[in-house]
Amino acid sequence: MDIKEYYIKQISRTNKKNYENYVVCRILNRLNDISIKFITQQPVIFKDIKRKALTDLYFPQIDLHIEIDEPYHKRQTEDDIKREADIITITNHDIRRIDASQSLKLIHQNIDKILDEIKKNIQKKKDDGEFISWDIEEEFNPQFYINKGYIDLKDKVAFRTAVDACNCFGHNYKHGGVWKGAVSHPIEKDTIIWFPHLYENKYWNNNISNDGTEITEIKKVNNKEHINNDILNNYDKKIIVFAHVKDSLNTTLYRFKGVFKLDVEETAKQNIAIYKRIGTYIKTYSHQ
Amino acid sequence: MDIKEYYIKQISRTNKKNYENYVVCRILNRLNDISIKFITQQPVIFKDIKRKALTDLYFPQIDLHIEIDEPYHKRQTEDDIKREADIITITNHDIRRIDASQSLKLIHQNIDKILDEIKKNIQKKKDDGEFISWDIEEEFNPQFYINKGYIDLKDKVAFRTAVDACNCFGHNYKHGGVWKGAVSHPIEKDTIIWFPHLYENKYWNNNISNDGTEITEIKKVNNKEHINNDILNNYDKKIIVFAHVKDSLNTTLYRFKGVFKLDVEETAKQNIAIYKRIGTYIKTYSHQ
Repeated sequence: MDIKEYYIKQISRTNKKNYENYVVCRILNRLNDISIKFITQQPVIFKDIKRKALTDLYFPQIDLHIEIDEPYHKRQTEDDIKREADIITITNHDIRRIDASQSLKLIHQNIDKILDEIKKNIQKKKDDGEFISWDIEEEFNPQFYINKGYIDLKDKVAFRTAVDACNCFGHNYKHGGVWKGAVSHPIEKDTIIWFPHLYENKYWNNNISNDGTEITEIKKVNNKEHINNDILNNYDKKIIVFAHVKDSLNTTLYRFKGVFKLDVEETAKQNIAIYKRIGTYIKTYSHQ
Repeated sequence: MDIKEYYIKQISRTNKKNYENYVVCRILNRLNDISIKFITQQPVIFKDIKRKALTDLYFPQIDLHIEIDEPYHKRQTEDDIKREADIITITNHDIRRIDASQSLKLIHQNIDKILDEIKKNIQKKKDDGEFISWDIEEEFNPQFYINKGYIDLKDKVAFRTAVDACNCFGHNYKHGGVWKGAVSHPIEKDTIIWFPHLYENKYWNNNISNDGTEITEIKKVNNKEHINNDILNNYDKKIIVFAHVKDSLNTTLYRFKGVFKLDVEETAKQNIAIYKRIGTYIKTYSHQ
């Protein structure tokens, strides 16, 4: 997808709500900086209150969300949110609200204030050497992370394919092969790379906790067998997790969720595979 | 209607076409000047080729139209156009095109170029003392034209009600009365003020020529009687015409079309009332 298609598709998602459409367009066009990524209707979990919602506009590089309070705004249903499974938990994110029931002049002033804040936050990131310019052609390119030397949870890394994810760790897979849910790490022998669905589907009922530190895995048929044969045999492995998600434009992504390890005791006790996060950072390797 | 409602409604008309929506929003928000009026989907007649169409964005103060060539753009049907009867003939208007199949960067550059042109045109009008700042609260206020002393066709004058139009010529009508299609001028005794529908409806099949210089009037029942009893009795009157139109947001307006006079010879010959435009300028009066 090129940047034009991204812009048009993201904005078309706001079309049903006239005020949201206008405010989102105004913010983006006044900001006028294609190095700043934005996502409309980002599914989020508010950590404190465990409520799921869609925020109207999200700038991931500075963790700022904008909510537009429409006159006659319909609350999103759980279905709206589940449709997109790339849910983020917003802790320490900023949320700004724009009250669309105000006058056009006040709405514009409010947008100007938020634009100032966005620009200041971006500048601060740049001054601190922490700003990664958004480049839609590059953002899912494994070579970028191989060159960087690591993948960090806070960088919100995702790949278009499991192949791309694997190739960050020294594999040299080609696209188009048949895929298992997990592969071994070619260099770190105590590690595997796992690509789970972390929401219910036909065969599995997996889940990740809202804070992202615990994964539970349930096979719908023969779960006990699965635990005994597959899970407990690999109990001592470190597991790099790339969760299968759908992004805001319904494209499949494999999103890095951290490094996990089986909680053997709890797994045996509950007869459900339970994994605990043991790291948020992992080294990358070029193919050797 | 306040300016916020105007902005939101005008822009919401572009919602079905994603590229048009983005380009229109970008132009308006980069322009960022609420003294500049805009109309989306303006019905126009291209004079030379007699083709009717909707232009995507129109700036009436500088007679500039913008057409956005969407990928998968559906041509408007005649029905789309007839729905809105406030059709303008574009002679000496400028039309700029934006090709939405280009890259985002080129689209943005193209918009920037057009914005420069708009700003230059506005500045020129201001320098020439010809710029009338758009004020949505004032634009249909008859007092403005009474103070000005005249109504000129080139100023594209319209009123919300026939009462407002009448009160520009010395009447002091109240809103809410019963209305005939025409009233006498209280000061210029050789003049009447007429509020025709200039498109077909239940009782009439009237028409105004594309260049705006000729009106034909046909009563669907007893047209001959109507001509003999009503029309030819007033053959020598000057007729100020405010045509009943629907504007872009489907609001009724009474739009000044000039001063007309019956063409007695042609009317007698064709048995259709035919009026010729004899002036494009008319004096206004305060109530005395």
